[in-house]
Amino acid sequence: MKIVALAGGVGGAKLGLGLYRALDPSALTYVVNTGDDIVMHGLHVSPDPDILIYTLAGVVNEETGWGRKGETFHVAGGLEGYGRPVWFKLGDADLATHIHRTALMREGATLSRAIDDIRRALGVSARILPMSDQFVPTMLATNEGRMHLQDYLVRRRCEPKLSGIAFQGIEHAAPAPGVLAALEEADGIVICPSNPLISIGPILAVPGIREALQARRNEVVSVCPLVGGKSLKGPSDKMMAELGHDVSASGVARLYRDFSGTLVIDETDEAASGQIRALDMKPVVRSTVMRSVADKERLAREVLALFATRR
Amino acid sequence: MKIVALAGGVGGAKLGLGLYRALDPSALTYVVNTGDDIVMHGLHVSPDPDILIYTLAGVVNEETGWGRKGETFHVAGGLEGYGRPVWFKLGDADLATHIHRTALMREGATLSRAIDDIRRALGVSARILPMSDQFVPTMLATNEGRMHLQDYLVRRRCEPKLSGIAFQGIEHAAPAPGVLAALEEADGIVICPSNPLISIGPILAVPGIREALQARRNEVVSVCPLVGGKSLKGPSDKMMAELGHDVSASGVARLYRDFSGTLVIDETDEAASGQIRALDMKPVVRSTVMRSVADKERLAREVLALFATRR
Repeated sequence: MKIVALAGGVGGAKLGLGLYRALDPSALTYVVNTGDDIVMHGLHVSPDPDILIYTLAGVVNEETGWGRKGETFHVAGGLEGYGRPVWFKLGDADLATHIHRTALMREGATLSRAIDDIRRALGVSARILPMSDQFVPTMLATNEGRMHLQDYLVRRRCEPKLSGIAFQGIEHAAPAPGVLAALEEADGIVICPSNPLISIGPILAVPGIREALQARRNEVVSVCPLVGGKSLKGPSDKMMAELGHDVSASGVARLYRDFSGTLVIDETDEAASGQIRALDMKPVVRSTVMRSVADKERLAREVLALFATRR
Repeated sequence: MKIVALAGGVGGAKLGLGLYRALDPSALTYVVNTGDDIVMHGLHVSPDPDILIYTLAGVVNEETGWGRKGETFHVAGGLEGYGRPVWFKLGDADLATHIHRTALMREGATLSRAIDDIRRALGVSARILPMSDQFVPTMLATNEGRMHLQDYLVRRRCEPKLSGIAFQGIEHAAPAPGVLAALEEADGIVICPSNPLISIGPILAVPGIREALQARRNEVVSVCPLVGGKSLKGPSDKMMAELGHDVSASGVARLYRDFSGTLVIDETDEAASGQIRALDMKPVVRSTVMRSVADKERLAREVLALFATRR
């Protein structure tokens, strides 16, 4: 069974790890958000692919869900001494990844090739594709002005009030090589419980990807990132509210209904099943909160079972 | 008294530190070899300016004479994991310098401006100019083929037999802004005891610099890097021998006589005074071996006294 998983950062990597453990990794392709990418100190930083790779490789900082386990920050101290902005704190082992990726790309490699090189070096055996090889940073309109997503998330700790989201240059971007074919050939497509607006949203905005998903709507199973109207981690709820979305499982259903036939919701939200059905999506009630590795694998197996029963 | 010092790496920084302590730093300009520069992992590494800056700032690793005191190597470990060549081992604090310099240059800064920014950030109050803003790597012809100087010095530990030295692209290079004016206005010019072929040689090869020195020949005092026919550190002696130069104070005099009126030699080499005089240079015998900071400052004061007596 060939599975494609669309994923963003920490939330995506949780179910991503479950899928990695539940499946033969050679059958698994991840399509990862790169709207979070940012150039820091001249280095191409690609947070979401790195979070996924570090998680699958078992080298992630398990407390934060991002960065490296046992990380040190000696370079950051030096950069601060040179007056460089260090609000986006990069650890030493993590910097090796950014230096390597940037060097590969300066030598002519695409982002796809750089990500593939990094995941292989760290021993990850599933395929990991960026949504696009083009640099399409997510820019936010806020009451403090226009800013890069990382600026909002990290420097400003999600405090500004959001009024709009733009994926800069997305109209000229193309899906990375292999993305459309993977979506076409997949036996099942999983939308991981990532932020619908800034993790899944950018992937959907790459010309051709949303249409490719729409063509596979019956095989697309989404896992709702909101539980009881709240995001488990990150600002999905705040951002959805500020942009006028219904902050609930039904609100997520409205965002995904055109390309996803099934929405897995948490037991807490069982009451939303009727509304979701009314939006022409099939609600599936499961325990979606993933605390342990066992939780992640269990939920992954439950999602995969939805494809198996359909065949 | 305005002083200009031409310097390469570790040997140059020794007398360089002596001058820094002996003079008002605002009267002091260093012109530093950048033929050692190399791009490693996409980062612009500028070894000789860094050695001088770290030395003057008091943050140099005093055992090696290069790199940072108390350095760690966490990034290098990560880079090695990605299969990158790490024979040119870069420490974490040192990497902050390379990342910062490279970022500044990608944003449009010249090498001069990057070096100026770095020395100011580390609290160095003398002016430090690269010989040129152009990248003119020193390439060696050897019995193992053509290689970058760092490849020869570090990876191959000076083992290959040398047959030639080229400063790649030097014919299109220009002295960095301020270099020619500093040489013209100096009350005294010091050639530090650096390798004549690969530290001082590249500086002399930048179009216009040798001519500018020739015009100030009476004010140019060189300190011989060989003592008793041997280099105190580094491969000056081996390199000079393999390229057919006389490995002695007189051999150095022959390389410098066209632009330097005075050669300071060690007491060990007093017997060479006659030969040096015959080459139309004034020999000055001093103790040139600098072990302690006091040695460096003492020799610097003795060199500076040569200018003072001339005026």
